[in-house]
Amino acid sequence: MQSNRKDLPMKINEIIEKMRQEKLESLFILKPENIAYVTGFKPSSASVLILKEEPLLFSTKLDMEAAQAQSCLPLEEFKSLEELIKSLKETLNGKMGIENSMSVGTYKKICKNFQTAPNDIIEGFRAFKSKNEINKIKGAIRIAEDSFKDIDFSKFSGSEDDLAAGLEYNMRKAGSVKPAFETIVTSGPRSSLPHASSSSQELGNPVMIDWGALYENYASDMTRSIVQSQKEEEILSVLLEAQKEAINAIKPGIKASHVDNVARGVIEEYGYGRYFIHSTGHGVGLEVHEKPSLSSKSDEILEKGMVVTVEPGIYMEGKFGLRVEDMVLIKNSPKILTELPRKISSKNL
Amino acid sequence: MQSNRKDLPMKINEIIEKMRQEKLESLFILKPENIAYVTGFKPSSASVLILKEEPLLFSTKLDMEAAQAQSCLPLEEFKSLEELIKSLKETLNGKMGIENSMSVGTYKKICKNFQTAPNDIIEGFRAFKSKNEINKIKGAIRIAEDSFKDIDFSKFSGSEDDLAAGLEYNMRKAGSVKPAFETIVTSGPRSSLPHASSSSQELGNPVMIDWGALYENYASDMTRSIVQSQKEEEILSVLLEAQKEAINAIKPGIKASHVDNVARGVIEEYGYGRYFIHSTGHGVGLEVHEKPSLSSKSDEILEKGMVVTVEPGIYMEGKFGLRVEDMVLIKNSPKILTELPRKISSKNL
Repeated sequence: MQSNRKDLPMKINEIIEKMRQEKLESLFILKPENIAYVTGFKPSSASVLILKEEPLLFSTKLDMEAAQAQSCLPLEEFKSLEELIKSLKETLNGKMGIENSMSVGTYKKICKNFQTAPNDIIEGFRAFKSKNEINKIKGAIRIAEDSFKDIDFSKFSGSEDDLAAGLEYNMRKAGSVKPAFETIVTSGPRSSLPHASSSSQELGNPVMIDWGALYENYASDMTRSIVQSQKEEEILSVLLEAQKEAINAIKPGIKASHVDNVARGVIEEYGYGRYFIHSTGHGVGLEVHEKPSLSSKSDEILEKGMVVTVEPGIYMEGKFGLRVEDMVLIKNSPKILTELPRKISSKNL
Repeated sequence: MQSNRKDLPMKINEIIEKMRQEKLESLFILKPENIAYVTGFKPSSASVLILKEEPLLFSTKLDMEAAQAQSCLPLEEFKSLEELIKSLKETLNGKMGIENSMSVGTYKKICKNFQTAPNDIIEGFRAFKSKNEINKIKGAIRIAEDSFKDIDFSKFSGSEDDLAAGLEYNMRKAGSVKPAFETIVTSGPRSSLPHASSSSQELGNPVMIDWGALYENYASDMTRSIVQSQKEEEILSVLLEAQKEAINAIKPGIKASHVDNVARGVIEEYGYGRYFIHSTGHGVGLEVHEKPSLSSKSDEILEKGMVVTVEPGIYMEGKFGLRVEDMVLIKNSPKILTELPRKISSKNL
């Protein structure tokens, strides 16, 4: 991670410029992913990054050695919120930007001492991925895809848990410190539960697998469905058409909600509209769900450098559910980053 | 999880009684672990539990099928925060309790419409484990311990990542949907990083392993250190003595900080005080870190039914670090729930 150091000052300068525009003297940053974005170091315990003309990172003793090695910023020890507030009051008197994600408990202590302005400034920057970040996301995708390919589905016998265990084992061995999120392996009628984790039930048909790896703190997120019956193949075709149309609709400058409309439109055309019960996608980066949201309610505009999932799904309670999910880099023409075949029939395995 | 249903009404009644004492008409609950505690159902997407005389759970379409099967409470669809606020305003007009963990972004919308009182009421209840909860914690411990025992350390060769992968694979196969936290496997000089995850480095000496499983949403958390040199054995003995004294000091009614003092006292006596850079322990349950905190700054009192870790550590930068961590149920005499041998020398493996 040391190699990032060169990038960081420019990024920090851009954020400080944005703070100036917003008339913020400082930004009080607690979210580990936001600290990782700015400093290159992802804390494992309470840490606070104070962004201002002369930024400072506060970490606990627990993280000190790692922070010293990885962070690009001057470091001090974080002892308690009370002590930190006391010392900041000596130097800061302007408006302090705080994260919208800050907890009310912390906020109540901060707002007694500073004039605060909640915002998503760092999350806004994070939506745009640098070349370096895209490479890390690609690394996370490669780990996830290779781990899938290393499973011999033609010989696999066992439960949903066993399949998830195998996939995660492969990802772990390849350097993913943990799954990017709780791996979903559902099969048979359970596949109609879009977010259920795996179970001890023997693997049935169809199979839906939603998994992702972490590589240098960056996530991947993809879904494949393995179909068997003609009905399942038919539904998968609908999803693939919806996904293809949605991806083709992606270009810089359009509304994120438009992509959702396109995917939903195709699914509705085939009469499955009421079974598509979530939004079409979301940004992925240091978090597996981040800006922008590809939902009907989103007011975000898609821009070059964003990385999003496109993941239409159809879930028929009591029968089965399918989803297909790929990751797309937004450029003048959308670039699909995930490469694993999308049409997987258990007949060919 | 269905079997819990019988317990729930009583628990809910106790919480509502507490709300009455605090003059709260309702509690607005967002934290998945808090929802799981009250309803038996742990949401995977935005859900809100409104606790009042007639409690209501709001879940997204994504979670509807699972919530229906697992939750003990009446269910409605969660569409958006705005819509929920609008509908609640029609029936609620008293003070609304909100979680200290609520984000500022959400808080700003809520406090415009309701008189709010941030609190940790549910976390307070969660510190006391029922028999049913203790059994789930024991389940999580058994999975973690069996997974450790299933690794043949005498034959193991590979990296820290490989060892972590093996441990997590075993836990996954045994039904832990994910590790309770990022598994730590550090060895050689890296072991002085108390919170580092594993690396691709070949396993050296000593080895520190901090791992935990999830069983029906409940966590386990333990650490073992495998020592080789005489110096390492000496440090481990100091830790075991500190841990033993600390555990013996645990009884209902004492200050949590006292347990930290006892452990720290032993380590200081041997001259390693400055290397014990974290607190002595924490509660474990639906979250791996919850109330109470066994730290020098804690003002909590230990009570029967709490489950805590006791985990002294010594970290010598540039040399090595060791920690030993067990889980203890607080009763008149403390009951150690973890059973794996604490003294592990690589000579005997």
